[in-house]
Amino acid sequence: MFNKETKTALEAQEAALRLAFAPIAFQATRALRDMGILTAVSNSRSTGITIEEIMEQTKLSRYAVRVLLEAGLGMELIIVNNKRYTLTKTGYFILHDRLTRINMDFSQDICYKGMNHLQESLREGKPAGLKELGPWDTIYPGLSLLPPEIGKSWFDFDHYYSDLATPAALDIVFEKKPKKLLDIGGNTGKWALACTAKDPDVEITIFDLPGQANIAQQKLKDAGVDHRVNFHIANILHEEIPFPAGFDAIWMSQFLDCFSEAEIVSILKRCREALNEDGIIYILEPFWDRQQFKSAAFCLQQTSLYFTAMANGNSQMYHSEDFLQCIDDAGLKVISANDQMGINYTLLQCQKK
Amino acid sequence: MFNKETKTALEAQEAALRLAFAPIAFQATRALRDMGILTAVSNSRSTGITIEEIMEQTKLSRYAVRVLLEAGLGMELIIVNNKRYTLTKTGYFILHDRLTRINMDFSQDICYKGMNHLQESLREGKPAGLKELGPWDTIYPGLSLLPPEIGKSWFDFDHYYSDLATPAALDIVFEKKPKKLLDIGGNTGKWALACTAKDPDVEITIFDLPGQANIAQQKLKDAGVDHRVNFHIANILHEEIPFPAGFDAIWMSQFLDCFSEAEIVSILKRCREALNEDGIIYILEPFWDRQQFKSAAFCLQQTSLYFTAMANGNSQMYHSEDFLQCIDDAGLKVISANDQMGINYTLLQCQKK
Repeated sequence: MFNKETKTALEAQEAALRLAFAPIAFQATRALRDMGILTAVSNSRSTGITIEEIMEQTKLSRYAVRVLLEAGLGMELIIVNNKRYTLTKTGYFILHDRLTRINMDFSQDICYKGMNHLQESLREGKPAGLKELGPWDTIYPGLSLLPPEIGKSWFDFDHYYSDLATPAALDIVFEKKPKKLLDIGGNTGKWALACTAKDPDVEITIFDLPGQANIAQQKLKDAGVDHRVNFHIANILHEEIPFPAGFDAIWMSQFLDCFSEAEIVSILKRCREALNEDGIIYILEPFWDRQQFKSAAFCLQQTSLYFTAMANGNSQMYHSEDFLQCIDDAGLKVISANDQMGINYTLLQCQKK
Repeated sequence: MFNKETKTALEAQEAALRLAFAPIAFQATRALRDMGILTAVSNSRSTGITIEEIMEQTKLSRYAVRVLLEAGLGMELIIVNNKRYTLTKTGYFILHDRLTRINMDFSQDICYKGMNHLQESLREGKPAGLKELGPWDTIYPGLSLLPPEIGKSWFDFDHYYSDLATPAALDIVFEKKPKKLLDIGGNTGKWALACTAKDPDVEITIFDLPGQANIAQQKLKDAGVDHRVNFHIANILHEEIPFPAGFDAIWMSQFLDCFSEAEIVSILKRCREALNEDGIIYILEPFWDRQQFKSAAFCLQQTSLYFTAMANGNSQMYHSEDFLQCIDDAGLKVISANDQMGINYTLLQCQKK
């Protein structure tokens, strides 16, 4: 993957021109999806549907329907035979595939405007596009303050992948029956809840920022397990605030990709100190070089630029080699790497060297 | 073209995900091009270049170079072998192909922000994205007022294709030795200048808006042919202002696509009145259904949405069938259609029915 030329000159020119018109094609795709045209075409199945029938169903002008259908032909979302339009497989994925929809909504609601500041972000090492969403230094304190429909696009994107990966990881973590588990970046408390349900004896400590911790606290109370969950509320980048210690297991899911390599090393060094002698650090991360499908790697590689322009300006979805170097630099060794978590995650188990 | 499914399910999912991340991929491509990374990779030819060498040449951080290179792998602009990056054919087109560059600059400078208002534009029949460029009802009065670097992207896009198509068209128009020629949408006077150079006896009348006419007037004066060129300065949509009349030839290049079908019929009816009995109306237009290559059709289909969101809200790059219907409705007949003009233009010759 990524080491061979795959295209003829003609195919390459087509790919280049598709990139050249990408923002227009993107907005046209959204309009086709959200203005009901793809739904009308999809419902017509193999019979197909005429422009007049689509006008009738969508209440849009002939002009509006026509320019969108024609753009859709070029993007291969639909095909036309005898003036009847039918959906292609690509159109099917745009309309019906949850993974595609979540990514598209994330691109639009979180990234579209801000991505216009990508070059500035890269030069300054700051998320220069974030000003399009709000007046924060990083996106994290802003997450609970985003307008609901925009916040939804972020959380759907954030949860979709990890929700598919965590059940298998939960089994692996509890094979060793940890008594004290530190959940770093505990977020809305989902993982802590799953842990208390999995093992009646485990004691959890959630380590997160105040905004997130408040949400988690309420959820745990509602579930009646708040007496088994402690909170360590702090910004992990403040190195002078000591970690709690004495843990059998430390859990970080989709957390370290939010930091630069220097920050990752600093966090892992402090995790090392917080760990019992034979304790294990469990790290669940997607690595773009460990993907089975090129399209999965592509999604992660593009998501990196969300971190650049919108999130914090210095983190990314890592190549495993760069990430493993951080683990080594922190005085830890990888004792197990399982690439079969959910769609595209790796579960690393680390111990003190 | 456009009538068959061409992809496997896996390819279709990849295409859908590429669309889902399109704005990010677009901005990453621009950053790779404009921050010197593709140039550094291109210059390394088949030897390839390391990330450290690119950092040295571009003065960018490792992080900045790395996230862009990784995005570039996913977009297949580059490949990597033994940690040395080389350019793919797609990367070559992004960096070196003038057609791709002009389209990409147009997408960014004219369309990127405004395209975020596409759905509003389609619902209202107005270019709702134009407010991102300036306070005009259509883009045309704004063209001479755009900041120079943005105006350049528009004019480069506008001229690139037609400049390649007009020399052959000039030969065809002057086969019939027209004495009086009406040049509608004369713009900066390029065509009028070419006509006066081609035939020492022809008398031209340029029909355009005041802003454009001023520019043309000066150019014709500089060339010493202003005594052979008249001006009819008016808005062609004002039906109450009569056309001049008595022409052997009427010329419209890449002009009628700026209007709705009803407006095209109105313009052509008045052209019919302005024409001598055996005079000819020459119409140079790109039609997306007459393209040899799918990528050329794709570019035109996406360009339609620029008209929707940015230009005037009701025009497009037409399918020839819809356009020919307008000609028929105006009381004209096509006596010749030549699809071999430049990259992708058709020259229609029309006479009174």
